Amino acid sequence: MSAEERTGVFRELTPEVAADARALLATVGHGALATLEHEDGYPMVTRIGLAMMPDGMPTTLVSELSGHTAALRADPRCAVMVGDPGKGDPLAHPRLTLTCRAAEVARGSDLHAAAREAYLARHPKAKLYDDFADFLFMRLLPERGSYVAGFGAAYRLGPADIAGG
Amino acid sequence: MSAEERTGVFRELTPEVAADARALLATVGHGALATLEHEDGYPMVTRIGLAMMPDGMPTTLVSELSGHTAALRADPRCAVMVGDPGKGDPLAHPRLTLTCRAAEVARGSDLHAAAREAYLARHPKAKLYDDFADFLFMRLLPERGSYVAGFGAAYRLGPADIAGG
Repeated sequence: MSAEERTGVFRELTPEVAADARALLATVGHGALATLEHEDGYPMVTRIGLAMMPDGMPTTLVSELSGHTAALRADPRCAVMVGDPGKGDPLAHPRLTLTCRAAEVARGSDLHAAAREAYLARHPKAKLYDDFADFLFMRLLPERGSYVAGFGAAYRLGPADIAGG
Repeated sequence: MSAEERTGVFRELTPEVAADARALLATVGHGALATLEHEDGYPMVTRIGLAMMPDGMPTTLVSELSGHTAALRADPRCAVMVGDPGKGDPLAHPRLTLTCRAAEVARGSDLHAAAREAYLARHPKAKLYDDFADFLFMRLLPERGSYVAGFGAAYRLGPADIAGG
C-alpha cells in the first residue's frame, strides 16, 4: 500500500475541526505516552499525568526511576494520546495523538516554575511529591498530530493547527 | 542510571497481583496501542478495539487503511495499555501494558473464525464492518508485561504470568 493510498484515509482539516482538537487538548489531565524502549527499541506505552502550559503545550511530571523517563532521556521521540472513551463504542469517542519530542525542564529555571504552576493547578495532590529528588518536569513539544473525531473520521494536524492562535 | 537501579522500582510479583492483572485484561474492550512509524521510527499511539480469545490473549480488528496496520505489517513489535482511569487521580487506577508481537490472522482460517467470534461477542456492532475487504484481525501475542496496580505500585510480568492457567 502506498503512502498516497494511506493518506486517503485522512479527511481535509477545517478550522473548526482543528479548534475541536485544541479544545480537547486543553481539558486533559492524563494521556497514553508511547516511547521507545532504550534497551531493545520496542515501543512502550504508559499512563502519564498531563497539564497544559500557558502556550497550550503539554507538560508532564515523571520520576527518573520510571522506564518512560529513561526511555525519553535516551531518545526524546514520543507520542501522547489524549481523550478518554466514554460510554458505548470506544472508537466513537474523539482522541488526539501528538507526535512530540520530550524536553526536560531544568530545575530552578523560569520554565520550571511555569511548568510546576500549570501542573499543580491541574493536579493539586502532586504537591506531595513534585519536589522529590527523582521527579522532574518534561515538556512534550508537538511536531505533528492526528485527531480522530469519531469512527473513521481522522485528520492530520501540523504544528500551527496544534498551537492555534 | 543502571538497569539494576531502575529494576528497583518494580515490586515482587505475587500470584494475587498476577491474577489481578489477568482479571483486568479479561474485561477490557479497548486499549492504547503503541507502534513504530515505519517511515521514521517514531513511536505512535492509537486507540484500538480489543477482545480476548479463548486462550486469554488479545485480538483486535483493524483497517489496512490505518497507520497502525501499516506500522504493524512493517514491524510487528508493539505494546498495548489497557485499564481506564476512573474518577480522581488518573495515576491511581490500575493499568496493564503488554509488550507484544502482532500476528495477522489469515482470512478463512479456524483462527479467523475464533477471533471473529470473540471480537463480535465483545463488540456486536463490529458486525457492520468486520468483513469489509480492508479489515483484518490481528492477534497481539505478549512477550512481557508491566502492571501498575496504583500510584508507584509497578510489577513486571512474564508470559506465564500473563497467560495464567
